Amino acid sequence: MTRTTMPPAKAASGTLDAAFRPRGIAIAGASADVTKPGHQVLSNLLEAGYPGHLAVIHPGADAVLSVPAYPALGFVPGPVEMLILAAPAQSTPELVEAIGERARTRRDLKVVVAIAAGFSETGSTDGMGWQGQLAEGCRAAGVRLIGPDCIGIIDNKSRVDTTFLTGVWRRPGGVSLLSQSGAVGAWMALELGARPLAVGLNKMISLGNMADVDMVDMMEYLGKDPSTRAVGLYLEGISEARALLESAARVVARKPVVVLKAGRSVSGSHAALSHTGTLAGPDAIYDGAFRQYGLIRMQRLDDFIVTLNAFDKLPLPLGGRVSVLTNAGGPGVYALDCLSDAGGLTLARFSAATRTMLFGLLPPMASIGRPDGHVDMSGGVSAKMIAQSVAAALRDPGVDAVFHLFVPTRVTSADEVAHELLGLLPGIRRHGLDKPYFPVLLAGHGVAAARRLLDENGVLTFGSPDQAAAALAAMVRYSFDRQPPGMEAAAVNGGAR
Amino acid sequence: MTRTTMPPAKAASGTLDAAFRPRGIAIAGASADVTKPGHQVLSNLLEAGYPGHLAVIHPGADAVLSVPAYPALGFVPGPVEMLILAAPAQSTPELVEAIGERARTRRDLKVVVAIAAGFSETGSTDGMGWQGQLAEGCRAAGVRLIGPDCIGIIDNKSRVDTTFLTGVWRRPGGVSLLSQSGAVGAWMALELGARPLAVGLNKMISLGNMADVDMVDMMEYLGKDPSTRAVGLYLEGISEARALLESAARVVARKPVVVLKAGRSVSGSHAALSHTGTLAGPDAIYDGAFRQYGLIRMQRLDDFIVTLNAFDKLPLPLGGRVSVLTNAGGPGVYALDCLSDAGGLTLARFSAATRTMLFGLLPPMASIGRPDGHVDMSGGVSAKMIAQSVAAALRDPGVDAVFHLFVPTRVTSADEVAHELLGLLPGIRRHGLDKPYFPVLLAGHGVAAARRLLDENGVLTFGSPDQAAAALAAMVRYSFDRQPPGMEAAAVNGGAR
Repeated sequence: MTRTTMPPAKAASGTLDAAFRPRGIAIAGASADVTKPGHQVLSNLLEAGYPGHLAVIHPGADAVLSVPAYPALGFVPGPVEMLILAAPAQSTPELVEAIGERARTRRDLKVVVAIAAGFSETGSTDGMGWQGQLAEGCRAAGVRLIGPDCIGIIDNKSRVDTTFLTGVWRRPGGVSLLSQSGAVGAWMALELGARPLAVGLNKMISLGNMADVDMVDMMEYLGKDPSTRAVGLYLEGISEARALLESAARVVARKPVVVLKAGRSVSGSHAALSHTGTLAGPDAIYDGAFRQYGLIRMQRLDDFIVTLNAFDKLPLPLGGRVSVLTNAGGPGVYALDCLSDAGGLTLARFSAATRTMLFGLLPPMASIGRPDGHVDMSGGVSAKMIAQSVAAALRDPGVDAVFHLFVPTRVTSADEVAHELLGLLPGIRRHGLDKPYFPVLLAGHGVAAARRLLDENGVLTFGSPDQAAAALAAMVRYSFDRQPPGMEAAAVNGGAR
Repeated sequence: MTRTTMPPAKAASGTLDAAFRPRGIAIAGASADVTKPGHQVLSNLLEAGYPGHLAVIHPGADAVLSVPAYPALGFVPGPVEMLILAAPAQSTPELVEAIGERARTRRDLKVVVAIAAGFSETGSTDGMGWQGQLAEGCRAAGVRLIGPDCIGIIDNKSRVDTTFLTGVWRRPGGVSLLSQSGAVGAWMALELGARPLAVGLNKMISLGNMADVDMVDMMEYLGKDPSTRAVGLYLEGISEARALLESAARVVARKPVVVLKAGRSVSGSHAALSHTGTLAGPDAIYDGAFRQYGLIRMQRLDDFIVTLNAFDKLPLPLGGRVSVLTNAGGPGVYALDCLSDAGGLTLARFSAATRTMLFGLLPPMASIGRPDGHVDMSGGVSAKMIAQSVAAALRDPGVDAVFHLFVPTRVTSADEVAHELLGLLPGIRRHGLDKPYFPVLLAGHGVAAARRLLDENGVLTFGSPDQAAAALAAMVRYSFDRQPPGMEAAAVNGGAR
């Protein structure tokens, strides 16, 4: 629940750095009682391995979960750059006083993360009053406020986790998520780790009522964050759409922003209004705006995650000329449909040298260049031939990206192919041919070990042609958008059939 | 590779029953050499646990993999209803002679499954000649021929497996697959078992060159097969489209036929031509024909599999009035979009009794009926409240299907919800309210145990709102198509908003 009914009251100063890399965290409302959210927050910080100074504010205990406890914020030894509020909303007045006092006397506090609920999202006079007090108190103290009623922040690099989620995925990487919905943020953060190949999560941010820090602030921050390589944005409806889109457009100049926008349908937008209190608005308007501002929109959460992962781990293609290799005819046909649906891609035209090499390399049953750029290597092809064909396609100057389907056969296992690829790919990369390669390994359990092996050696793999095609098309579009107009035209013409 | 260059030469007689439930199987070309396809076929039959008499035809060995070997087909003690040919195509003349002799003398042979390659798919004069000889020899002997150059047949009920695939999924169920592409058949058969919740595979059929038995024969067979509850059809292009569609339409009167048609795109159809030798044709024509004949088309393989599984395991909805319950606002909005995209569904209008019950049951934070039929139970809801809300929705006479999203929260785990549901659902079912229920459990690892528990107790679960919505929409369409025109109109009007 993230209804915003208050105008944002911006803090006059303060940096957001402390929200992600605080020197010292204190928690108000941390409890040994496992039914309390404050208990889960403290557990998560311990599980994440937060390396800084950690303290609990508790009237009666010496320690909670072995973390030292102090009767009030003023007693916690410094530095305390972040205060997490998991205490009931009713305690806002005394907390605001403590925040003000800490800011005056110790001057270390920089950010308050209020995960507690019971504020303006309730629609009650009390709740709105407390939210106003909290926002004003933080502003006066020069402290930034995240929330209230928020999930807050996960940072897998600095090992910060202000959330009360269970099962948070903690593998660090280049993907950062900014979600308008706490539950969708949670869903995404869990899905990343549940995939056959886990995605590296850099940051997950969900801001709740946004009494101070809002989506625009965080978009700006992620744009400047050197460890974030790709930004995933979940939206339902936004009241200040232009500001967010303009901010995202500035980020897009540096790194891709992939957006998942729900509330597209009539019923969905109705529910979104009740959920986040924002009008989803006609979907076509959003769609056009995303395109204009250079955001890449995905319709499905699975495509969204796979695309972010691809942006994180693969080099950008210089154009949209794709070569498709397969050892299985039917899946090859299916994949060509996926690539066509994804849009903006053309099949590459092989050079004469590549064609000669492939004809020499592959068995007579192979179908080379029907259509051009597509190679059905045939089911009898060996792992070595597969790897050499991939290498030949990657080396062809007319090929911008290689899409490679593999189905295990009686004669060629996924493990053999993985080993052959690992023998060839590093050499190709060293010679500067750093093109994106999309190996799609079908199907399931039989290819799991090979996918893990490739993953551990820095080769991203895919489990579905649909998802891989969506990711490839997104990367090509982003690459085109970034090229100067002249370059772009050249690439398009080069790829035209 | 399944190019058809020969006109089909139908056997004069013979039943296809023996292809799925043969009393006795002999294998020509079975070998102790693990590099030979015949080795894998024999291994698969042993792994599948084929309960009938199994024999190998081998000139020099007494046994292969402990299966008794005989120097020629004529020496194998009966009955031998199925002969699997894994021997090289060159040996066709002598095999044809042996088939003819066996048919004359023992009269037990009913079907030949020729998995060997080297026939008309090569385009060579020899290959085409051998295929002609094989087809004519079988026809003359009154024996049906499957293949050549085929994957053949998997039947998990009778424990037959003529394929040389590795890692075949052997859990039996009601889903049968008929694939024009051997590799896509293999992909699907592997994907079924690789999913978080395995799908029950009844039969997988891929016919290769179709020198005798063709897709129409098999479609008819699956239509009459009592253990097949849903048919999945993979197509690229078909030369005799009308016959297959008419056959499928007869099947649709008894059970759903879900189709995945590749070669939709220009490049895909070009590759299909080279792959199966058939023109994919303009996709819109296929699309219209599928609709006209009552086949349900899916675009993505994952949706296709999940939909088949739903048809296998869930009761059909009587109409398209759907109630959506969620304990997380954002995922609820996302799901409403999925349901809208899937088409043909309307949100249910709750009865006054259901509304009263939900308002009494759920916490004040819950959002009930915004829009109508949609309930955001709120993140604080308990497992018991969730199960009771699901039960209330299922009991409402204005609700045809219940779509239920769950994201684990700090206060409610997936395991608790699973246990509560298992306490309530059997009673609801006993009272005749056997409506389809779509529990979508997000996300990943955290809900795996709960999904397994529900699955083991006969409650199908889903991992993605997109897939669940696709399955639900397919079931509603199939249900509408089967109702007499008057009924259908009533259901539609009942669901209209």
